[in-house]
Amino acid sequence: MKDYLFQKVYDYVVHRIERREWKEHDKLPSVRQLSSEMDIHRLTILKAYQLLKQNGKVYVKDKSGYFVQPEGTENLEHFDNPIVSAYVQKNHLSEIHQSPVSYHFSQALIDPNLLPNHYFSDYVKKVFDLYPKVLATYSTVQGDTELRETLSRYFINQYKTYIHPDYLLITSGSQQAIHLIAQALIKPGDLVLFERPSYSAAIDIFRAHGAKIEAVEIHPDGYDLAEVELFLKKFKPRLFYLNPTFHNPTGYTVPAAQRKKLVELAEQYRCLLIEDDAYHDIYFGQAPPPPIYTYDTAGTVIYIRSFCKYISPGLRIAAVICQSSLMQSLITVKSLSDNGSPLLNQKIFLHYFSSLRMQQHLAKLRIALQIRKEIMEEELKATDWHWTSPIGGLNLWVKLPDQLNTEELLTKSIEHSISFVPGQVCDPLKQRSSWIRLSYSYVNEKQLREGVSKFVDVAQTLLK
Amino acid sequence: MKDYLFQKVYDYVVHRIERREWKEHDKLPSVRQLSSEMDIHRLTILKAYQLLKQNGKVYVKDKSGYFVQPEGTENLEHFDNPIVSAYVQKNHLSEIHQSPVSYHFSQALIDPNLLPNHYFSDYVKKVFDLYPKVLATYSTVQGDTELRETLSRYFINQYKTYIHPDYLLITSGSQQAIHLIAQALIKPGDLVLFERPSYSAAIDIFRAHGAKIEAVEIHPDGYDLAEVELFLKKFKPRLFYLNPTFHNPTGYTVPAAQRKKLVELAEQYRCLLIEDDAYHDIYFGQAPPPPIYTYDTAGTVIYIRSFCKYISPGLRIAAVICQSSLMQSLITVKSLSDNGSPLLNQKIFLHYFSSLRMQQHLAKLRIALQIRKEIMEEELKATDWHWTSPIGGLNLWVKLPDQLNTEELLTKSIEHSISFVPGQVCDPLKQRSSWIRLSYSYVNEKQLREGVSKFVDVAQTLLK
Repeated sequence: MKDYLFQKVYDYVVHRIERREWKEHDKLPSVRQLSSEMDIHRLTILKAYQLLKQNGKVYVKDKSGYFVQPEGTENLEHFDNPIVSAYVQKNHLSEIHQSPVSYHFSQALIDPNLLPNHYFSDYVKKVFDLYPKVLATYSTVQGDTELRETLSRYFINQYKTYIHPDYLLITSGSQQAIHLIAQALIKPGDLVLFERPSYSAAIDIFRAHGAKIEAVEIHPDGYDLAEVELFLKKFKPRLFYLNPTFHNPTGYTVPAAQRKKLVELAEQYRCLLIEDDAYHDIYFGQAPPPPIYTYDTAGTVIYIRSFCKYISPGLRIAAVICQSSLMQSLITVKSLSDNGSPLLNQKIFLHYFSSLRMQQHLAKLRIALQIRKEIMEEELKATDWHWTSPIGGLNLWVKLPDQLNTEELLTKSIEHSISFVPGQVCDPLKQRSSWIRLSYSYVNEKQLREGVSKFVDVAQTLLK
Repeated sequence: MKDYLFQKVYDYVVHRIERREWKEHDKLPSVRQLSSEMDIHRLTILKAYQLLKQNGKVYVKDKSGYFVQPEGTENLEHFDNPIVSAYVQKNHLSEIHQSPVSYHFSQALIDPNLLPNHYFSDYVKKVFDLYPKVLATYSTVQGDTELRETLSRYFINQYKTYIHPDYLLITSGSQQAIHLIAQALIKPGDLVLFERPSYSAAIDIFRAHGAKIEAVEIHPDGYDLAEVELFLKKFKPRLFYLNPTFHNPTGYTVPAAQRKKLVELAEQYRCLLIEDDAYHDIYFGQAPPPPIYTYDTAGTVIYIRSFCKYISPGLRIAAVICQSSLMQSLITVKSLSDNGSPLLNQKIFLHYFSSLRMQQHLAKLRIALQIRKEIMEEELKATDWHWTSPIGGLNLWVKLPDQLNTEELLTKSIEHSISFVPGQVCDPLKQRSSWIRLSYSYVNEKQLREGVSKFVDVAQTLLK
């Protein structure tokens, strides 16, 4: 794990000094100031300053700040001074994940120990027996036909909605699916509607493609549909990116009645719905309502379904369903992006997905995750924080006391080897927030108890 | 295999009829006319018209053309009328590959029978023994550390140039590498310099990112460096995408002396060189000169090296080398694009790459491909066509007689189950050309003799 932002800050300061824009004994910007200028977390700036000090580039005077060291003339590679600079892009969530901590409450991933690892080598062996040239062959760009046929049958069985294999595209994870959609459908200045809060990487992807962003609140009981209609009318968004089932980060689920109505509204206002469904099978009681795309009769929904997160995240397999003309464009974008996902991965997934073991695994996994969720909630009971207990997914969306600065809390928590996602990162409008996302899926039960209890202590200290 | 353009043409006609823009008994545009309007190959238009006729949407009157069938009122899904249309993108090469033929001279891929398939299951087993949770784990975005360290050592041994593993990025094939570079470094209106001809997918990728394009000729003995300098001076390109070793499509190799000089020019005019090196190990005599990036001391080159094409294309693994600040941007773009290539694929590649078997495989492969090249050349000897016999790579770049229309030849050839790549597809300036690319790597020796001989016959018929 490497901290690239850290390197960026480090290089930035070194360049300034090297070009003598900052001269001997000049004072460096404060950590807070540079953090806001570079839009990089304060802790990262601080760590870079500390290493600069260690390396003799800067020195500290009393407590008044960092200053340029005279004779800072190490043999710097001009390799770090690019001929051409890249257009800056950001991935906010991935920056937080780079912090090396023990209690990963920022990771909405499933503990590898809960995944069916030891079965997989059997399926891999089977794949090599069945398709001895699997590694010598490219998949078609759209994805392995056998896998698409299997998924087609699965969707028909599950939701009684006919999905032809030609309307299915296999992608390398759902993140790639979002990225392909943004490439095919977004030009700078196009408006994209988000839920508020929303999935941070999706916000970053659409932003990187130049989208203007608006957002409607998602509540424990779904949307305020009058508000959604107002937004559709007022902003005429090209797309509405949504995550209506065990929503990330809140865990909320949009009820069935609203799903149907939403499709009608989207059709009326000619707005594509991008339905990201990454946690569908992780429910703790009843199965969730059918996906929004099952209510679609007019090609209004692009549906992204990922299974791998709770089976084998390492395979990087997701599926996109959409109507024919958009599918053709997505396939072209996929062909330019990577020419198709690896066939081996698709075949391994296919054979596990078609096996009985998958349903058994899911049943066990739901229980294990529900227990972890309950442990987290139990440890949080000591506080006066608020959350709506989710009936599925991997996250708790928690409201902290208003006076708690979540950025400061993150810095402090990382010092105590705890990570979480501040609400601001999940806000399409990037405003400060006293909400945070805590994932209960990645660390084991013991760590969960320890970590959450520690975390509560850290927060209490800041409140004093 | 599915022909999406075909579907596009089909849908286009159906919509016109459905919306009554084309009414009963109206004459459809001629195949040639629609082909030029939609920028889609005539054969594709013809096939779509034929299916429309079969499906009772249109009828044929004598030989005067296609007409709208009355009562063309099948229950058309309004699913094909999108709420939002995608921004059109193209991948020209992939369209040609979609033609179902027996003699694939358009595929610059290696015959799966020449690849080390039966060894791979051993390496896969080894990977599962060593890393039992390989499928439960994400790779870091930059790529598996062990693989990057191994590649770093490999480059140091091969070229005596120190490449730190931090300056290496693992991508899902070299096409993804080009795509990531375009995303990080190209904004609409930026100028990209190409060789002429060049790799068709790279042209499409940079074009899709809005690049303006200029091109310098590549000759059997490399570039005219005075011309390159003129172009660098005149157009101030941001990037120069080049493929100097067993160049695709020509097979030409830029000599060592020019490589050094080119880096100096690029540095002087502040133009990044994107060196795509996909065929480096496929040489028929001496190994090629070291990559251009080995002459780079100022971070002027981004080097894309792929190995998988001649080992295990199904794994989709390539490596990008570049200096630190650009690397950070590429990693961010990669994180947004797919969050990292699958770990399993990286580990399998690592273990094969580190084995002795790889060098043995390459030695055998070179001989097999040289034989195929010679067979193709032998069969072409009957003609008065010209080409420079390549000393590596997978392709023959052949000059046909000027009076031969290569588009017409492609249509005819596909009718005879033969595909090739017309020069126009490889031309960054998209001009008509009497050059074609014939790949000798994908079909076996017997098919090669038959197919090339048939192909020569087809061409002779058109010349009569």
